[in-house]
Amino acid sequence: MSTDLMPNRYRPGESELPRRESELIARRDKVLGASYRLQYRRPVHFIRGEGMWLYDPDGRAYLDFYNNVPCLGHCHPEVNAAMADQAGRISANTRYLEPKLVDYAARLVGTFPNELDRVVFTCTGSESNDLALRIARCASGKEGVIVSTYAYHGTSAATAAVSPNLGDAVKLSPFVRMVSLPGPAGVPEAQAADFFEMQIRSAIMDLKRRGIGVAALLIDSIFSSDGVWVDPPGFVAGGAAAVREAGGLVIADEVQPGFGRTGAYMWGFERHGIVPDLVTLGKPMGNGFPIGAVVGRRAPMEQFGATSRYSNTFAGNTVGIAAAEAVLTILQRDQIPQKALAVSERLRAGLEKLAKQRHEVRAIRNAGLFFGVDMGAEGTPAAGRRAIAVDVVNAMRDDGVLISTTGANEDTLKVRPPLVCQAEHVDLFLASMERALIRVAG
Amino acid sequence: MSTDLMPNRYRPGESELPRRESELIARRDKVLGASYRLQYRRPVHFIRGEGMWLYDPDGRAYLDFYNNVPCLGHCHPEVNAAMADQAGRISANTRYLEPKLVDYAARLVGTFPNELDRVVFTCTGSESNDLALRIARCASGKEGVIVSTYAYHGTSAATAAVSPNLGDAVKLSPFVRMVSLPGPAGVPEAQAADFFEMQIRSAIMDLKRRGIGVAALLIDSIFSSDGVWVDPPGFVAGGAAAVREAGGLVIADEVQPGFGRTGAYMWGFERHGIVPDLVTLGKPMGNGFPIGAVVGRRAPMEQFGATSRYSNTFAGNTVGIAAAEAVLTILQRDQIPQKALAVSERLRAGLEKLAKQRHEVRAIRNAGLFFGVDMGAEGTPAAGRRAIAVDVVNAMRDDGVLISTTGANEDTLKVRPPLVCQAEHVDLFLASMERALIRVAG
Repeated sequence: MSTDLMPNRYRPGESELPRRESELIARRDKVLGASYRLQYRRPVHFIRGEGMWLYDPDGRAYLDFYNNVPCLGHCHPEVNAAMADQAGRISANTRYLEPKLVDYAARLVGTFPNELDRVVFTCTGSESNDLALRIARCASGKEGVIVSTYAYHGTSAATAAVSPNLGDAVKLSPFVRMVSLPGPAGVPEAQAADFFEMQIRSAIMDLKRRGIGVAALLIDSIFSSDGVWVDPPGFVAGGAAAVREAGGLVIADEVQPGFGRTGAYMWGFERHGIVPDLVTLGKPMGNGFPIGAVVGRRAPMEQFGATSRYSNTFAGNTVGIAAAEAVLTILQRDQIPQKALAVSERLRAGLEKLAKQRHEVRAIRNAGLFFGVDMGAEGTPAAGRRAIAVDVVNAMRDDGVLISTTGANEDTLKVRPPLVCQAEHVDLFLASMERALIRVAG
Repeated sequence: MSTDLMPNRYRPGESELPRRESELIARRDKVLGASYRLQYRRPVHFIRGEGMWLYDPDGRAYLDFYNNVPCLGHCHPEVNAAMADQAGRISANTRYLEPKLVDYAARLVGTFPNELDRVVFTCTGSESNDLALRIARCASGKEGVIVSTYAYHGTSAATAAVSPNLGDAVKLSPFVRMVSLPGPAGVPEAQAADFFEMQIRSAIMDLKRRGIGVAALLIDSIFSSDGVWVDPPGFVAGGAAAVREAGGLVIADEVQPGFGRTGAYMWGFERHGIVPDLVTLGKPMGNGFPIGAVVGRRAPMEQFGATSRYSNTFAGNTVGIAAAEAVLTILQRDQIPQKALAVSERLRAGLEKLAKQRHEVRAIRNAGLFFGVDMGAEGTPAAGRRAIAVDVVNAMRDDGVLISTTGANEDTLKVRPPLVCQAEHVDLFLASMERALIRVAG
C-alpha cells in the first residue's frame, strides 16, 4: 500500500512555479485549513470551462479526462438556465409542499428497478453514504459494515471510519471489516465470484461471533478507489446475497458509477445483476450543483422514518431539484450514456493498441467511460510503478490533458472524462498519453 | 420533554385539506422516504418568493418570520446574479488554484477574532459540525463531547449522536455528556455562569474518570433548539474555559447565530465574550446555496491536516463561493446586522406590550432577530403550554404568517425572520400574533 496517500499532488519546493501561482499558493496556505491538497506537481488554475475543455488565465486549453462531476460538460447552459430560472422564483425546502420535488423524485426512482421506490435527498455523496449507514443500522439493528480493502466512501466521521483509502491516520471503526477483491488478489475470473463471496461470509461470521452483526455491505460497483476492478460482471452477486441472508443490507455506492457512467447501464449495480437495498448518489447528479440522494426499498426507509426525522436544510431545495431535473432530462433525451458507451469502446481499442506498443501499459480495465490503466511493466516494483503513473499524469497535465491516479499502490491511471466526450477527444487523449509515455519512459 | 418531537407538523387525517394539496401529499408519500415531515397542520406550498414574502399557487402572500436561510430575503437578485454569472464561467473545485476561493476565505476569516485564521469549506451545517468533531477529536486525542440537554447539531451519524433533540429513538453516543442550561433550570441570572460551569466541570470529570476524556464543548450560543436561552451574555465563558483547561476544544455552532443574526455581532459567540477554537457555519452563508464552513485556530487545523486530507467534492466550488461572497458583501455594505438589531428592538417592544395584555405570553427572549416566546400562562401544565404554542403557530399560518415552535417542551414560538425585516413587517407580525392569541385563547 502506498505510504503517500495522494502521490499526485503539489509539494512545496518540489516544482518550479511561475510567480503568479507561487504567490497564490502562499496566500492560500495562510487562510485555508491544512487538510486541503492541490492536485498535480504544478497545480492548475482555470478561469473558464466549456464542454470537455478548461482554460487557464493565459488562454491555454486543457482537455478534461478527469472530472466526473460535470457529466454533461463544464458550464452546461441548459442546466445553468434551469438553475438560474428556479433561483429567481423560489428555493423552497422539503418541509413545504412542492410538486417539482415530487415530480423529480418520481422520475428518478423510475430509472431504478421496481423494488427501489423511495428517495431521500442530501447535498453530497458523503451525506448520502452517511445517511445510508444510519438507515442500514436502524433497519438491521446491527452495527457491522463490510467494505473493500481500499474503499473510499466519504468525508463525514461515519463514512471516513469505513474508508481505508484515507490511510492509517484516519482510524477505522471497530465495526468495519475489509474484504479483498478478486482482481488485485490475482484470482482468475472464473473463481472471482466464489472468492468474493467466501471473503464476505468470513467477515459476516467474524462480525456475528463478536456480537456486532452485519448492518451492511457497502460497495462501489466500479471499485474506483481500489483501482477500477469491474470484471467479471456479476462477481459481487453471491457476496451481496450472503449479506442479505444474514440480515444485512446491500448499499450500492453509485456516487461514481451512477447516472450512466458505465455506459450500458444507468446504475453500476445493474452490471452485476443485483438489486441493492439502498443506493447512494452524488457527484454528477446536478452537473456540479451540490445534490445527492439515497434511493431505497420501502421497508428500511419506513423503519428509519418511523423513529427518525431527517431534515437537511438545503437538500432537495427547489434550485437543486431544477438542476438535477435538467441533468436527467438531458441524459435521457440525448442518450448520453449510450453515446458514452460507443466512445468508451474507441478509447478501449486505442489503449489496447498503445499497450501493444508500450510495455509500461500493464493492464486496462473499464466499465463504460471509467477506465483504470495500470502503469509499469510486469515485474516493476511497486514504487517504480507508482512513479511512472505519477510521472505520466504530470506529463499529460503539462501537455494539457487532465487525469490522475488511483488504486492501493496509486499506480493506476484514473481516466473518467465528462460523458459528453467525443471521438475527437479520445484521439487527442491517446496521442497525449503516447507522448507522455515516451517522455517518461523513453 | 415532548413525546412528539415535531408537534408542528402535518398528520394524515388531522386536517381537512383541499384536493390539490391532498393529492400532492399522496403522490409525495409514495416516493419520498418516510423520514420526511411536512410543517404545519395544513402544509404550505409556495411558487414564488421575494424579500420577506412567499406566495402560494392562489397568489396569497405569506409573511416569512421563520426562514433564516434566505438571510437577505427570498430570491435575492444580486446573489442570484453572482451565482449565475459564475456558473456560466467555471465551477472549479478546491484541488485547483482559484483566487476567488482564497479571496473569499481571507474576507471571511477577517470577520473573526485574529486567533481564528483558517477555514475549510463544507456544503451543509451538518457537514461543518461533523468535520469540527473530527478535528477536535484528532487535535485533543480524546472522544468526549459536551452539549446542552436539548441540543441539535446535525443529521450525519456523528452529529445526530450528539443531538438529544432528535429524540429517544436516535441513540446518543456513549461519549456524549449533556449539561443543563441555567435558564430552563430556573437558575437566577446572577448564578447562571457558575451553574453552567459547574455542570461542565462535572461532565469533564465524568468523562475523565471513564478514560474517555473531553474532545469538545459544542454549543450554539443562541441555544435555539433548547428554546432560545441567550442571557445573561457571557454565561458560557467559565464553562468554555474549563473545557480548554482540560485539553478540549470549544466549538461554536454558528449555523443559526452566525452572519449577523444576533444584530450587534457578526458571530453569536462574541456576545458571550469568548474566542472558540473552531466555529461552524451553514444556513445563511449562501442565502440558500448549499455552503458551510469550519473556521478555526491554526493549531488544531494543522494537527488534523497533517494526517488527514479533507476532500469535499462540491464544497468551496467557485459557484458556491460566488454566492457566499455576494452575501458577505451585501451584509457588510448595507449594514444588514445593524439594521436587524434596530428592527429587533421594535419587535421586542411590541412583544412586551402584547405580553402585558395577554397572559398566554409567558416570557420573551431574544438576541437580535432570533426570538423565543414562551406560550401558556404561569401554572399551565406542559401539554397545555405546548398545545397553545402549536395552535398559535397554525392560526398564524392560516392568517398568512410563518413561524414555528422550539424548546424541550416545544412550547416556545421560534421567530427568526430574514434579516432584511423592516418595521412594517414587525407591525404586521405583531397584529397577526394578537389575532392568533385571541382566536386560540379567547
